[in-house]
Amino acid sequence: MAEKVYIFDTTLRDGEQVPGCKLNTKEKLELALKLESLGVDILEAGFPISSPGDFESVEQIAKAITNATVCGLSRAVQKDIEVAAQALKYAKRPRIHTGIGTSDFHIKSKFNATREEILERAVQAVKWARNFTDDVEFYAEDAGRTNNEYLARVIEAVIAAGATVVNIPDTTGYCLPHQYGEKIAFLKNNVSNIDKAIISCHCHNDLGLATANSISGVINGARQIECTVNGLGERAGNTSLEEVVMVIKQHKDLGYYTNIQSQLLNPMSHDVSDIMRMPVQPNKAIVGANAFSHSSGIHQDGFLKDAQTYEIINPEEVGADGSKIVLTARSGRSALAHRLQKLGYQYNRNDIDVLYQSFLQVADRKKEVEEEDLHQLASTYKAAPATT
Amino acid sequence: MAEKVYIFDTTLRDGEQVPGCKLNTKEKLELALKLESLGVDILEAGFPISSPGDFESVEQIAKAITNATVCGLSRAVQKDIEVAAQALKYAKRPRIHTGIGTSDFHIKSKFNATREEILERAVQAVKWARNFTDDVEFYAEDAGRTNNEYLARVIEAVIAAGATVVNIPDTTGYCLPHQYGEKIAFLKNNVSNIDKAIISCHCHNDLGLATANSISGVINGARQIECTVNGLGERAGNTSLEEVVMVIKQHKDLGYYTNIQSQLLNPMSHDVSDIMRMPVQPNKAIVGANAFSHSSGIHQDGFLKDAQTYEIINPEEVGADGSKIVLTARSGRSALAHRLQKLGYQYNRNDIDVLYQSFLQVADRKKEVEEEDLHQLASTYKAAPATT
Repeated sequence: MAEKVYIFDTTLRDGEQVPGCKLNTKEKLELALKLESLGVDILEAGFPISSPGDFESVEQIAKAITNATVCGLSRAVQKDIEVAAQALKYAKRPRIHTGIGTSDFHIKSKFNATREEILERAVQAVKWARNFTDDVEFYAEDAGRTNNEYLARVIEAVIAAGATVVNIPDTTGYCLPHQYGEKIAFLKNNVSNIDKAIISCHCHNDLGLATANSISGVINGARQIECTVNGLGERAGNTSLEEVVMVIKQHKDLGYYTNIQSQLLNPMSHDVSDIMRMPVQPNKAIVGANAFSHSSGIHQDGFLKDAQTYEIINPEEVGADGSKIVLTARSGRSALAHRLQKLGYQYNRNDIDVLYQSFLQVADRKKEVEEEDLHQLASTYKAAPATT
Repeated sequence: MAEKVYIFDTTLRDGEQVPGCKLNTKEKLELALKLESLGVDILEAGFPISSPGDFESVEQIAKAITNATVCGLSRAVQKDIEVAAQALKYAKRPRIHTGIGTSDFHIKSKFNATREEILERAVQAVKWARNFTDDVEFYAEDAGRTNNEYLARVIEAVIAAGATVVNIPDTTGYCLPHQYGEKIAFLKNNVSNIDKAIISCHCHNDLGLATANSISGVINGARQIECTVNGLGERAGNTSLEEVVMVIKQHKDLGYYTNIQSQLLNPMSHDVSDIMRMPVQPNKAIVGANAFSHSSGIHQDGFLKDAQTYEIINPEEVGADGSKIVLTARSGRSALAHRLQKLGYQYNRNDIDVLYQSFLQVADRKKEVEEEDLHQLASTYKAAPATT
């Protein structure tokens, strides 16, 4: 039987902290309600202590959300945790997300502390957070570069202190998929109380590996993925929600499922892009404008014979417009015939061979051959078929 | 000793066939020369039979390029191969890239043929191409969904027929990294003459896994990666050149290197984006506008203490502008102090604490706090420090 992977959306926290993406309370609330309809299990609404505006946003979201767990971020600092708890007061399912850097880079450069001191601060933070809610997630920042033995000690200690979810972030996006997977497997095998918590993946995309790392984490024992719509987030961003969801959905052989309504993925992507004013590149997986466009002759010919030759996902399954047959100088005869037929022109094979030569002359001059060009082409051909 | 991974750039072929990306000969030539300076080993210049314009582009590029191998695409069709050879006549190092679909999807839906017929056509195409050049690459289209035993038979036969590079495309972007790696390992272990050819990865990004799949391919024995600048290509695109190059460069532990001048990656990305008019999203790995921006307080504080806490790549190493400290409502005191100091204001810790509250009020109203806001903030503070 398939096992559930929880989708923890942090579009409104890790995504919103990106230059240019800051939202006001009304905008955050609008997106939060849409994310809940999308089916996210946990909604990280913000970082309440960061500003009065963000506190208000988290509070409003906590009041409005009915099904999803609403989560607030904090550092491993008593005041942060209290403010997060206060902002989450009205949430039906509140989660406090607290944590601290555990790599030697962070311990020395950021905190000028020792491993023992950091472990103690981690435990105290989790204990403090448990005073306000039973659902406490701990993040071991820069876990990707943290020594595995030390990481296992920290994770064991915070679970003993009451953490119900343990987040293993690859904060700098450095890990390779097999390395990140091995880290999760190490924790599964070396933390005695690991079955009392859910392991969560939080991967950054600095080397373009966030999706692969998250899936590798799940294969090795994680059951929550932290991600954002369109992969927004610090620097090169976070794991793309739409990508991990569709990997899990397409690869049923892996044996997992999520709660996401995949047909809402494209509308959600457009809403986030519009409201945050952050463009999505045309070649973005699942939600890019070209994700289901076919333009080379070889691909178009195969696609028109059977969509499955070049398409693994039906566009409707992710709420995208139908597959497009775009005509350029790289298109072939079958695509030309297909588009002409859609415009009401019926030609036989010989007609198309002749028309195709005229088509290429137009296409070599243009980026894309449009409907009006096709009408023009058809009218010329009919006028003087014998001379072409 | 580190082993070389060949970078096969197909920006001008798989990238150029994307809706909106078509280039004229002058533009193609301009990019080809820049790609050669970048250090690509093989430059796929186009698909010569596709149009007269593309034939001319490939011919011009073949004449102009001095170091890189220039490659032309063809189907496993005699006429295609002859036209490709003709377009490559002036190349110092010509390569013909020919091939055919080998998955049952392609064999049945596209060709209405049998496995044996396809194998024979593959062998004939390679033999024919070898009449024109000693450097012949064979692609087994949709290898990602091709039965491994049959794929191994095809690869063994085309190498025996003279193929020097064998390309194993995940045409539909369906494979998971471990699956793609296993396929490459299967060929390494089951094709008796595999050492006579270089295995090439050609991965599509439909599920966001192209970079991870290519690296998994290399780890399992491939020594060429087919990729494009900015990850352009059919549908959700190809493997991003900049991502695989930097994975290999950052992970020296893997034991590989490429010939790419990494400091040219960002200028190259801008040139391709400008000339092809294809935007790169801000959160694109390596070459996005935000790839080296830090905006949350936690990250900024750590970054200012030691860049390595949040940055695995020095922006200069990939030709990007220096790391940016952007001020938003999620920024902290240390980032505010840093930016004020850069503008010539010296404040002590208490000053910053007071100023920070006024800063947050401004920041909650705006997407980003700009220089003029900081000057305004500083002037107000100096005028009435006691009342704040």
